[in-house]
Amino acid sequence: MNSKLLKDFFLIGDQTFLPHVSVDSVIFGFHDDQLKVLLLKWEGGAWCLPGGFVKHDESVDDSAVRILHERTGLENIYLQQFHTFGDPAREKGKKIAPAKSWINKRFITIGYYALVEFSKVDPQPDILSTECRWWNVSKVPALIYDHKQIMNKALEILRLDLNDHPVGYNLLPEKFTMPELQRLYETILGESLDRRNFQKRMLGIEILEKLKERKLGGAHKAPFLYRFDKRKYQKALKQGLKSGW
Amino acid sequence: MNSKLLKDFFLIGDQTFLPHVSVDSVIFGFHDDQLKVLLLKWEGGAWCLPGGFVKHDESVDDSAVRILHERTGLENIYLQQFHTFGDPAREKGKKIAPAKSWINKRFITIGYYALVEFSKVDPQPDILSTECRWWNVSKVPALIYDHKQIMNKALEILRLDLNDHPVGYNLLPEKFTMPELQRLYETILGESLDRRNFQKRMLGIEILEKLKERKLGGAHKAPFLYRFDKRKYQKALKQGLKSGW
Repeated sequence: MNSKLLKDFFLIGDQTFLPHVSVDSVIFGFHDDQLKVLLLKWEGGAWCLPGGFVKHDESVDDSAVRILHERTGLENIYLQQFHTFGDPAREKGKKIAPAKSWINKRFITIGYYALVEFSKVDPQPDILSTECRWWNVSKVPALIYDHKQIMNKALEILRLDLNDHPVGYNLLPEKFTMPELQRLYETILGESLDRRNFQKRMLGIEILEKLKERKLGGAHKAPFLYRFDKRKYQKALKQGLKSGW
Repeated sequence: MNSKLLKDFFLIGDQTFLPHVSVDSVIFGFHDDQLKVLLLKWEGGAWCLPGGFVKHDESVDDSAVRILHERTGLENIYLQQFHTFGDPAREKGKKIAPAKSWINKRFITIGYYALVEFSKVDPQPDILSTECRWWNVSKVPALIYDHKQIMNKALEILRLDLNDHPVGYNLLPEKFTMPELQRLYETILGESLDRRNFQKRMLGIEILEKLKERKLGGAHKAPFLYRFDKRKYQKALKQGLKSGW
């Protein structure tokens, strides 16, 4: 770690970044019926969400994308803002810079989340971190400040979002079976779902195309294959799923 | 308006408030099948959402409640945070204070919304405003900065929230008919709903108690009365409505 760079960051970083405002991202990863979350390990040894600061002339959305890339190497991730955390006590135990540094002041952090196929991305730690890796969401270690609370809130919103928004594109193979899609939902929700209800509701959403092919190779009767109707999927992403009202 | 107070606010307000962070609230009002929004008129003549700043030692949630009270007189309103607006160009045309004032810098604003029974509250403008009143959501005048965009986003979220959260408590009489409840949903959504589907889904949510009484006085067959099961309603508010997954 370049100590001149770090010293300048602590002393005059507020020439580049807004004081009092930060961004933290909760990156969930799905693969093979597992749900994981991406964490960084600081040089000091503590684990945290990938986060950073907003440049003076930069939109907060752009900051989130830039920070995620700088800290983990991840690119082309669609980040969804989900909540802003503004408790003055949220950074309990904070003391990483000289006492007068802008960085030791209170920060309000804007949370973003994303859900990616974790086998397709190769996270890399930045110069401030010694490690960057996926953790099973049920086995996350202690995190700094209120980062565990931020992660839990993101998980809650991700689960609620399943009611309004389609999920699965880029997480499943192009052609998939209904049980594969159901397991994605079950993995995110952390609970089992009824097979018939799931299929009925999923078909009712009208974002799937049923193919004539069936999946071969299993021991049982070959199940039908589906794929997302990309146009309808995009429309549902933007406008939300048709509600029952 | 006390000009000494205002001068001090522009010059040294950042001793009390965080720079770069503000709060704006979108207060929707429902009454008699109408949906309205609460706006303030600045001394300068422009209309805006009731908003303000975060004290150094205050949580952002608390700021939102305090600001709404100070600016409109409203109390005991449950404010729901819905989105943070962080475009550096969002305050286009801003120029209300001396050039060097902290207030002329860029602000990221945290949006809150609420839905109240507007005949039960009596909004009062603060010293910075000449007027504070309800506007029909479809007839809102030009607003400052990105406030129209903030209002529209709140409306979008309010409508989506109908999928996950119960609504109606404190907006309807204690005992109400199914058509009255349906009109509340239709007013918020800005569209007509199918009577049978609405009733079926609403009863499926299991937050209503069907009473033995019927509503009297109408020309047609007296409709059944319902009331909310307060315990189930509160639970659904916290945990979200049971999804179909």
